Amino acid sequence: MSNITTEQMRFWSPEVRELDPYVPGEQPKIQNLLKLNTNENPYPPSPKVVNAVQAVLAHSADVLRLYPDPDALELKQAIAKQQNVAVENVFVGNGSDEVLAHIFKAFFVQDKPILYPDITYSFYPVYSQFFGISTKTKILPLNENFEIVVDDYKQPNGGIIITNPNAPTSIALGLSAIEEVLQANPNSVVVIDEAYVDFGAESAVALVEKYENLVVCQTTSKSRSLAGLRVGFAVAQPHLIAALEVVKNSFNSYPIDRFAIAAAVASFDDQGYFEAQNNKVIASREKLVIHLEEMGFKVLPSKANFIFASLPTKDAGELATELREKGIIVRYFNKPRINQYLRITIGTDEQNQRLVNTLKNDILN
Amino acid sequence: MSNITTEQMRFWSPEVRELDPYVPGEQPKIQNLLKLNTNENPYPPSPKVVNAVQAVLAHSADVLRLYPDPDALELKQAIAKQQNVAVENVFVGNGSDEVLAHIFKAFFVQDKPILYPDITYSFYPVYSQFFGISTKTKILPLNENFEIVVDDYKQPNGGIIITNPNAPTSIALGLSAIEEVLQANPNSVVVIDEAYVDFGAESAVALVEKYENLVVCQTTSKSRSLAGLRVGFAVAQPHLIAALEVVKNSFNSYPIDRFAIAAAVASFDDQGYFEAQNNKVIASREKLVIHLEEMGFKVLPSKANFIFASLPTKDAGELATELREKGIIVRYFNKPRINQYLRITIGTDEQNQRLVNTLKNDILN
Repeated sequence: MSNITTEQMRFWSPEVRELDPYVPGEQPKIQNLLKLNTNENPYPPSPKVVNAVQAVLAHSADVLRLYPDPDALELKQAIAKQQNVAVENVFVGNGSDEVLAHIFKAFFVQDKPILYPDITYSFYPVYSQFFGISTKTKILPLNENFEIVVDDYKQPNGGIIITNPNAPTSIALGLSAIEEVLQANPNSVVVIDEAYVDFGAESAVALVEKYENLVVCQTTSKSRSLAGLRVGFAVAQPHLIAALEVVKNSFNSYPIDRFAIAAAVASFDDQGYFEAQNNKVIASREKLVIHLEEMGFKVLPSKANFIFASLPTKDAGELATELREKGIIVRYFNKPRINQYLRITIGTDEQNQRLVNTLKNDILN
Repeated sequence: MSNITTEQMRFWSPEVRELDPYVPGEQPKIQNLLKLNTNENPYPPSPKVVNAVQAVLAHSADVLRLYPDPDALELKQAIAKQQNVAVENVFVGNGSDEVLAHIFKAFFVQDKPILYPDITYSFYPVYSQFFGISTKTKILPLNENFEIVVDDYKQPNGGIIITNPNAPTSIALGLSAIEEVLQANPNSVVVIDEAYVDFGAESAVALVEKYENLVVCQTTSKSRSLAGLRVGFAVAQPHLIAALEVVKNSFNSYPIDRFAIAAAVASFDDQGYFEAQNNKVIASREKLVIHLEEMGFKVLPSKANFIFASLPTKDAGELATELREKGIIVRYFNKPRINQYLRITIGTDEQNQRLVNTLKNDILN
């Protein structure tokens, strides 16, 4: 934006001139690239997804011209069934990023400060700025092992958001710790962002019935291999879902298109495929961790489809650059505390082996 | 929401408790229903749209698991080509409602008032509330013929939005009037919302090169029969597009999914189908207007894919109810000034004939 003049800037809303937007992981188009930088699933979605989209196409002449159901009721029903909650407990959005944005607007525009960890999903500070609450945000440091300090979340606040498993650390918090946070904050909304929960952590959806201040957010982008589709959802008690619906209907009435609804429904209906695939990713993760530790890497204990690893003998930024030169991209965050770590998405066993071989033979030899 | 207690309301952001969300036209599932209430196109999208989605499905195993291009560059290129502008002039979003929301945030959060007509797209006041500028909004009455009074838009302001053709009035403003507004407001952004422009009005895209304060917004939902898909776009000079990109990347990095991108690209590439189909709708509109005028209806001069009509001898609300009983739904707004009008979407000639016959034989006989 360096080519925009001060004079042209007069057209922008003053608060927008101050925004510092999120930067998504790159999506380069390079031959034979091994893309381990944006936590996508190495496996395709359920074959039923393709059938469901084919069924929409078979009626395309009748249906594409018509708006989708603004409530995406069929999708809410499929999610409710799979999550073992009522349809009134489900909110859906155009990817969990949109759901999170609506969550910030619905619950976090408060006089008291919003709490979240110093090392977490880097979109949270962006939402805070977007909704004008960044000066009221209180950033709480993880401990030296990159763990959330539960007692820190027992101070006065206007809302709490915790990624679980956390990103990019990959470390999961148990449900008893989450219950401690919920119980300590009966008057503020506690959001558990579970983008990576299906790779081995415990979901707080089991606590929704018990806690009127809990919102759980999930996505189809990772464990359902549907990053290309943009469907995320939240589970909470109806009085919280209602706030999200008010926000959504004040922003965009029809956020999810007909293909995305049909495809996501098919995915939620295929529980067997979902479980088998996640188990494969988990097994591959455990193998990869062993290989990396053998090479001297320090790997944080992961319950996600990525690991957070550092090599004491080599600068992480340099390592990322050298991997890239060999056609492997991983995510490197040049930020305080974590600038000696790489976030590496779990690939197939074959892909992980390529990473290990490249490190062993080409970079660390 | 009547079942939410005051106690439960403490979890909501205070400003969200005050929101009065948009209510989309209903999407009922009734047998043999003639749906003339949400301005959808009666014809299917280009057959090339189906082929494009089939092509995504053919590679689904490789691509659905991957995030879409956050910039949707391929789609921007297709729009730029069809609109005869550069790709730097194009912004895309998840339906024009999302694009409009981003426009309000990017340009209209100002100290000076935002101007728009009293009778226009009913989402504008909702966005004003959502972004906290409703007390700064100045609503300007259309004249007695439901026309925009151009001179009203020459007072101090922080931004202007005009739907052209206007909705639900269907009346279009010429480009010379729009230029007058643009020239009178060199320091504020003038947004022309052209959801219905392809049915006979002049597009202000032709003025983008000349005016640094112009944003034109369009949608694929109406003239491209892709309401089911959610793709809208804006055309403006790069310094304004940049503000929209900052807002978008502070809200949701990947708003448009892979199917929607592929389908919309195919639609923009099929100019012949687009023109032929719009001409059919326009021809049907002209025939319908003659039939309705013969029955005594007063019909405003329409350049849209709907008409705004009133019958001096019968209450419009009653008329809507009676049409509904006969399986035909039209849009009725129980609002000051327009509560004696019906907004009727243009169907195929056969559908319009059913409306005419029902009115003639069952309701007005």
